[in-house]
Amino acid sequence: MHHTDAEIALGLTKANENEDAALERLFDLLRIPSISTDPAYAGNCSDAAEWLRRELAGLGFAAELHDTAGHPVVLATDHAASGPHVLFYGHYDVQPVDPIELWNRAPFEPYVVTAANGELQIHGRGASDDKGQLMTFVEACRALKSANDGVLPVKVTILIEGEEESGGKNLPLFLEKMKQALAGADIALVCDTDMWDRRTPAITSSLRGLVADDIVIEAANRDLHSGMYGNAARNPNQVLAEIIASLRTPDGAVAVEGFYDGVEDLPEEVRDIWKTLDFDEAAYLGEVGLSVPAGEKGRSVMEQTISRPTCEINGMWGGYTGDGFKTVIPAKASAKISFRLVAGQDPKRIREAFHAHVRARLPADCTVSFSPHGGSPAITIPIDGHFLGLARKALTEEWGREVALVGSGGSIPVAGEFKRILGLDTLLIGFAQTDDNIHSPNEKYNVTSFMGGIRSWIRILAAFGK
Amino acid sequence: MHHTDAEIALGLTKANENEDAALERLFDLLRIPSISTDPAYAGNCSDAAEWLRRELAGLGFAAELHDTAGHPVVLATDHAASGPHVLFYGHYDVQPVDPIELWNRAPFEPYVVTAANGELQIHGRGASDDKGQLMTFVEACRALKSANDGVLPVKVTILIEGEEESGGKNLPLFLEKMKQALAGADIALVCDTDMWDRRTPAITSSLRGLVADDIVIEAANRDLHSGMYGNAARNPNQVLAEIIASLRTPDGAVAVEGFYDGVEDLPEEVRDIWKTLDFDEAAYLGEVGLSVPAGEKGRSVMEQTISRPTCEINGMWGGYTGDGFKTVIPAKASAKISFRLVAGQDPKRIREAFHAHVRARLPADCTVSFSPHGGSPAITIPIDGHFLGLARKALTEEWGREVALVGSGGSIPVAGEFKRILGLDTLLIGFAQTDDNIHSPNEKYNVTSFMGGIRSWIRILAAFGK
Repeated sequence: MHHTDAEIALGLTKANENEDAALERLFDLLRIPSISTDPAYAGNCSDAAEWLRRELAGLGFAAELHDTAGHPVVLATDHAASGPHVLFYGHYDVQPVDPIELWNRAPFEPYVVTAANGELQIHGRGASDDKGQLMTFVEACRALKSANDGVLPVKVTILIEGEEESGGKNLPLFLEKMKQALAGADIALVCDTDMWDRRTPAITSSLRGLVADDIVIEAANRDLHSGMYGNAARNPNQVLAEIIASLRTPDGAVAVEGFYDGVEDLPEEVRDIWKTLDFDEAAYLGEVGLSVPAGEKGRSVMEQTISRPTCEINGMWGGYTGDGFKTVIPAKASAKISFRLVAGQDPKRIREAFHAHVRARLPADCTVSFSPHGGSPAITIPIDGHFLGLARKALTEEWGREVALVGSGGSIPVAGEFKRILGLDTLLIGFAQTDDNIHSPNEKYNVTSFMGGIRSWIRILAAFGK
Repeated sequence: MHHTDAEIALGLTKANENEDAALERLFDLLRIPSISTDPAYAGNCSDAAEWLRRELAGLGFAAELHDTAGHPVVLATDHAASGPHVLFYGHYDVQPVDPIELWNRAPFEPYVVTAANGELQIHGRGASDDKGQLMTFVEACRALKSANDGVLPVKVTILIEGEEESGGKNLPLFLEKMKQALAGADIALVCDTDMWDRRTPAITSSLRGLVADDIVIEAANRDLHSGMYGNAARNPNQVLAEIIASLRTPDGAVAVEGFYDGVEDLPEEVRDIWKTLDFDEAAYLGEVGLSVPAGEKGRSVMEQTISRPTCEINGMWGGYTGDGFKTVIPAKASAKISFRLVAGQDPKRIREAFHAHVRARLPADCTVSFSPHGGSPAITIPIDGHFLGLARKALTEEWGREVALVGSGGSIPVAGEFKRILGLDTLLIGFAQTDDNIHSPNEKYNVTSFMGGIRSWIRILAAFGK
């Protein structure tokens, strides 16, 4: 059964007519504080999974929750169509909301507001990453079904996990376990990336990997008074600061030994494509209040953020951090340190080199401990496939502009797992904007991203089914 | 009216007989969580002041609370005696209690326990610093009065403030205002320092000064996603760590330009006195789990902690510090940094040199702001005075050992203010032990410190009045 162009048009009409109801459904999901990294919100994560299961069951999917060692996975199938089989991936979990005082309104009370630039924006934690993005696909399925007596143009499996923001170590185990059930899929679709700009759709064709560690430096067996022990007692804050400082060379490169081994320079042809993209470095940095690229000298901002690996101090703390002053020498100091990897870097080797770097700089009387997070390599998506060609054409029809094929500096480990475990290629097609404040206060998703996303998936699925 | 030796003996007997009641009174005071640095405890600070006022009024002092811009000052006078006039100083405020999870029991539920080494110890925040110490003087006054029909051997003024642990910027203003009322005092007594060891009393004859700053480094106008901005966006955690690392040279000296200008080497005669004190470096560090002095190479632990200035990172924090992981580049990072000063260092000049040091290392796109705390010079107490001689003799009688005349690495700014504003010399006589865990979890005060302290003040005041 093939969808006709008339049915696509009807699907788009249905989507447009149902905008208010679709926003209401998204708001329901956004109201659930499904912060996966904080055990206090485990119940809310289950609530979000169950909300999605019910929603998909209501659309006629066979929808189930699958328990993992962490938060549950939602798995929903509708294989009534005779066309190819797509595996859609999204995640219902969200980032923590601190610093809470910087939010204009409560992060889990979503609302639509007209921004200073005239845009209609959906505000709330997860509005973009990834609840708003995943709901574009769910709403596209709804519109397509209502346009064709409940039948989709392709076989669809929807997999929505709840640990993308917290290391995601249970998803690979789940994929291994469900390998047989998922084996029939022809292509994976992930909606967790950005558009090129407000009006230009993008397909992401490369992703950086991620290695991260919690690190704790300890010295004395208790907090000490700096008047009694100052100078003589090793101060873990000082030790940690010296170690962090040693991670970058004065010219902005990462100083871990062997860090750039295997990293290749950007190929000329990619450099040429990037030139056509009209990327405005000054505007990209200026929009967040910066003006000078901080990383490796001589590398453009696009290289630094997409094709070069990085080391970032995501958090650090030690000693007294409250109001007023306390002249303490703390017993320990901690940091959260992450590395974004590019092709040629092995996560295991990078982690070992980092640990060796720290241990080599540890002074007498200090100990260090590491708690690993993440551990995924960079991946590259083939840009000449059948489905990618169809998706490019469908996106161009929707947005009236050529699709940008871009690399992304972020890490979406699941694409690598789909390839490794299921042998499946992934299309990374997302509708977020770079200023969506994902992982930050006042996260938002433009209404044009949401509605354009729904309409894009309607066109893409119909094109796959033709 | 002079106290006779019989009356001293009676006072000591009264003190011994009233041990249980004296401990109960101390417990009452320890139960009040008078954390001065945290505005949430302002009411408790007032409660502690009022508790002391009532206690002193009950002993026959004319006792009043005086409002300041911060917490109130307790001022109590009993000038019935014809002898000299002593001004006793203590503070009722205490340090914060974090990290709360390291306390064996609730910090404001005091108790006496027999420690593993057989010692009887009073446990609770403030048990030593300074509630336990100041109550030794109050209980000595009680015993002396009960031994001599309510009359003390000397005129006594008691001044107890509530901001010693939080910068104490209001006390100098109070001293200026009360200059006339306090002008008659002959000597100031401060009970906020350590004994040399369990059995050897000490008078502290030098103190380090203190300069401290809260420092905040800011870069981007919001928290950023490290996958999108890593490398290219300046990371304030990294910047702050590099600045902190730059504060020490590889040989452990403080690297701020001009920091050691005016600092003189330890005089030979002091070095000789210190040699006789039989200080065990290995034991001092070993007791807190350390073995190698961290500060300036070639300087002993005693020099590093008493006669050399220091720079310590008392707190630092930036980015995500909760459970799990968040790949954020924070908009700002903060630290609490303090300097202990010795003779020859001007607090104002040191603060300016520190600010210049930071500003010189601030990369593009970053700003820094400072919030000053403290600002007191080091002071030296004359060791050949009349009252010091009497106190030495009285302490030796009580403890059966020669008094140690020592320098202290801590800072007690009030001694400098007494000199500057009231023209008054100060005797620093305390009964704390170096392992009292002041400013740390499980603060304690030995019962021998408490009772020996009470008995010591009975002998000292009687000696002054003879």
